[in-house]
This record gives sequence, structure tokens and C-alpha cells, in this order.
Amino acid sequence: MTAFGKIAIIGLGLIGSSIAHAARRGLLADEVVGFDASADVRTRAAALGFCDAVAEDAASAVTDAGLVILCVPVGACGAVAKEIAPHLKPGAILSDVGSVKGAVIGDVGPHVPDGVHFIPAHPIAGTEFSGPEAGFASLFDGRWAILTPLPGADAAAVERLKAFWQGLGSNVDVMDPSHHDLVLAITSHLPHLIAYNIVGTAHDLEKVTEGEVIKYSAGGFRDFTRIAASDPTMWRDVFLNNREAVMDVLGRFNEDLAVLQRAIRDGDGDKLFDFFTRTRAIRRAIIELGQESAAPNFGRDSKS
Amino acid sequence: MTAFGKIAIIGLGLIGSSIAHAARRGLLADEVVGFDASADVRTRAAALGFCDAVAEDAASAVTDAGLVILCVPVGACGAVAKEIAPHLKPGAILSDVGSVKGAVIGDVGPHVPDGVHFIPAHPIAGTEFSGPEAGFASLFDGRWAILTPLPGADAAAVERLKAFWQGLGSNVDVMDPSHHDLVLAITSHLPHLIAYNIVGTAHDLEKVTEGEVIKYSAGGFRDFTRIAASDPTMWRDVFLNNREAVMDVLGRFNEDLAVLQRAIRDGDGDKLFDFFTRTRAIRRAIIELGQESAAPNFGRDSKS
Repeated sequence: MTAFGKIAIIGLGLIGSSIAHAARRGLLADEVVGFDASADVRTRAAALGFCDAVAEDAASAVTDAGLVILCVPVGACGAVAKEIAPHLKPGAILSDVGSVKGAVIGDVGPHVPDGVHFIPAHPIAGTEFSGPEAGFASLFDGRWAILTPLPGADAAAVERLKAFWQGLGSNVDVMDPSHHDLVLAITSHLPHLIAYNIVGTAHDLEKVTEGEVIKYSAGGFRDFTRIAASDPTMWRDVFLNNREAVMDVLGRFNEDLAVLQRAIRDGDGDKLFDFFTRTRAIRRAIIELGQESAAPNFGRDSKS
Repeated sequence: MTAFGKIAIIGLGLIGSSIAHAARRGLLADEVVGFDASADVRTRAAALGFCDAVAEDAASAVTDAGLVILCVPVGACGAVAKEIAPHLKPGAILSDVGSVKGAVIGDVGPHVPDGVHFIPAHPIAGTEFSGPEAGFASLFDGRWAILTPLPGADAAAVERLKAFWQGLGSNVDVMDPSHHDLVLAITSHLPHLIAYNIVGTAHDLEKVTEGEVIKYSAGGFRDFTRIAASDPTMWRDVFLNNREAVMDVLGRFNEDLAVLQRAIRDGDGDKLFDFFTRTRAIRRAIIELGQESAAPNFGRDSKS
């Protein structure tokens, strides 16, 4: 018998399917049952076979599960929680994987029955691909998962969920939900917004064709297209649900950009040079922490 | 005897050293002679051995060379051209590799002696590393090099330079200099400016520590740190010398970002979803054209 016995994964996209793969690799469950609101996704997931069973409804997926993980877009968590709440086993842990924690807590919290431990979580891992075919067992290896338990959360339950994420390959941190949302606003949400925006700008220019943008993208532009290819539904929900923190960091970004813009306009080479110099160290630190490839060009060309 | 006999490379950083490596691989020269203004770089380049000889001054490097390529920051091209002009062989081709063509033409053009063919060029290739150790022979393979000959340029000389770049592994296009500068403003210069800026913004936040930014960078931020680690001198010069085109595309970027910002503020999910949906196709096209890795996460994790 594993720590949770049966695990239920609601939502079988990139993250849900990767959890299933990694849980199997780590022997973390007696049984992994998946469910997805899309019948097409259920069929594809069943054919891929990364779950022991794919349920036809969320209620039967969560019945008797010791751990239930919501792997749906942030905006869908509340409705799913409401639907499954009556079927949750006493003592079960209910968790999620959303990029925003404050809104999920607000939406899910009210539906959690007494005796069920609601412990929000967020793995900082992903790719630009979506859907059940995109998942793989090593997605979380060496990446960080952040748990944001509420005040008064059961410490033993938090430890059990922490051990589960470590079993999936993650390092685990515990953080206050509102601080999480601010940290992710700068490390993830703003980068995605900026990437989507610059790809949009390039798309709309009249004097440079899209064909030219594509052909000469190796000059830097192509780096941005990766995260701008991420799932639109997920990202719509992130921005709708982390508005305040995103506006905060976006305001800072705009202020900083105005300073650079003025330095260019004024021909202030010293200011530009100083700015461009201090941004090198941060990449070295990311590489040293094992969160990035040290190879040139992300190692994408494997030619050096 | 090769097409140019002796080739001179002035500036032995990432691009200059890669040209030397690739010219040797392609048997494109009888002799490759390099020079760099830095005595330290000359010593390192001589030890690395990618040139047949490293000259002690620019004048002797270019003497008798059939092809001279300036591989120095854009802002230094004019002074170098002035210095070497008296030593250029009649019939030689003088070229460069700068990311800006209009300014280089304005700075170099007046110094070019009669009988020397000045043909500006720009290979759209690079990595985030700098210096003579960073170069490698395959850097230009499958990437585009853009030639921007002036009106009345000798067609045979243009063809010879085109063949040289093809020999280095590049595809070659010919373009008007001012159009080049606009195309590069969106495909390369603005992406670098935005990347430098977001890394700076993250660095300066009070409420999120740099340690947190580094730890959780896999959420998207780390993608930006690569091009924000590029050579500060090169990029200072790019922005000082392509001001008008950069201001043009930056203005568009800011307008587009204001629209996204308002959509977030207004909670306009449909607008966000539509915007995030139309940016996917451009990445697919870049991959199909062989300018990007199809693997998740640029293939950086090699885990999938």
C-alpha cells in the first residue's frame, strides 16, 4: 500500500499526464485514475495508457482516492471542486497545480468538505506543448514545486504532499499564497505576456513581412516564440486571476523600458552599456542552480 | 589558389573566430590572418590556432588580402576602415558583419579607396557567448546571411562574397540596407532590448528576491536570460546606430502591450484568448523552415 492508495488526476493535459507518468515511475500510487472534461482527451489518454483507468466522470474518479489533484486551467478549479466535493474521501488531500494560488484558494476553498485537506500546489515546470501526448515522466525532475498551505493546515498532510512531489522528482518549497503570486508574476506571467506581445507586434508590422520575421528569427526573436506557443486557455486564466500582481510587475517593466527608450533616444551609450552589463550574472546563477542548460543557444543546435 | 587567396579578419570575437573556423573547414582561403585591437585577445586567438597567423597590427593583416571582413562592434567600423584603407589591395572586397547596415555604410563608405569593393554583410547567427573561445565552424550552417550592396556595386564582387558565405554554410539573401535595419529591429534588436529590460526589472524588484527569481526561472523567465547575456558593447552600439528603426518597432510594441494591459485590467478573457491563439503558428513556421528546434523547451533538457 502506497501513501495515498488511489490517486485521482482531474485534467489530463501536459501537467496531469506528466504527473501520471512520474507517479508510475516512482511507484507512488496503488492506482492512478484520470478524468478529463473532454471526451476526446479521455479517449486519447486511455489509448496512451499512462493512467491505470480513465473515468467517465469526475465523481467516480475521485471516489476512494487518497489524493486528488486538479490539473485544469485556473479558472475551472472552482467548478470542478464544487462537482467533486461530495465524493471526496474523509482524510483525502485535495490539491492543484495552478500558476495562481490566491484565486484558486478563493474559488476552491469554500467547497472543501470538513475532514478533507486542501493544500494548493504549483510545479514550476512545463513545455510549450499541450495535451495528453505532451506529458513525460521526467518533467518535474530537478524543478521546484511550491506548496501554499493555508493557515492551520494539517502539518502531516503537508508533509505527505511534499513527499509526493519529491517522489515525482521535484524540489519542494512552502510559501505564502500571495507571495507565490507575486514571484510567479515576474518569473512566469510577465515573461509570457511579453513574449505573446512581441510575437503579436511582429505579426502586425506592415513594412516587414511575416516571412521575413520567420526567416531571420535566429537573431533573437525565435527565443520568444517558444513560450508564446503555450496553451491559450491556461494563460487567459492566469492573467484573469492574477491581475493585481501582473499589473504591479508590468508597471515596473514599463517604467524600466521607458528609461531604456530614453537612453536610446538620447544616445546615452554609457547608460545602455551599464544596463546590458548587469544582466549577465543572473543567467550564470540560473545555470549554476541547475535550472538551465549551460550550452550555447540552449543547446538547441548541438553543433558547438 | 582559392577565390580570395588571403583573407583578413579584423576582430576575433564570436563571429570573427567562427568565420576563421568555417573558412578553414570549407577550404575557402589560402591563408586566414586575424587581428584584434586587444593584445589579450590576440594572444588567446594565436593559442587557439584558428587563424594561420595573428597580425600585430590591422595594416599588416589586410595587406595583400583579397577579402577583408570587419568583425568589430558596429560603432568601431568607421575608425578601423580609416586605419586600414591605405593598405587595402586594389580589387579586394571589404565587408563586415554588423547588425546595423545604414550606419556602417555611412561610417565606412567615405574611407573606401577607389578600386576596392565595399559590400556590407550581416550573418543572422550567434550565441550568447563572446570572445575568441566562443567561435565554432558550424555557427553559420543553415542560417541566413544578408548582403546589402550599395547601388552600382560590382555584380561579380557581390557574387564572389555570396559564394564565400555559402561556403561558410549560410543561405544568402540580398537586401536594401534600410530594409535590413527595419527587419533586424523587429527580429533581433527589439527582442534583445525587451530581454535586457525584463531581466533588469526582475533584478530591481524589492518584494521578490533575486534568489527567488533564479530558483523559479523555469516558469518562463530563464528563456529571456539567454539573449540578455549577450555582449554589452556590441548591443550598446546596435542601439546607438539603429535608433530610428528600433524606436519605430518599440513604439508598436508599447501600443500592443497597452492593449493587452487594458484587456487584463478589464478582465476581457476573449480578447486575451484570441491574442494568445494567433501567436502559435509563427513558431511552427520557424521550425518548419529549419531555424528552430522542434523539441520541447528548445531540447535543453533532453528528457522528453
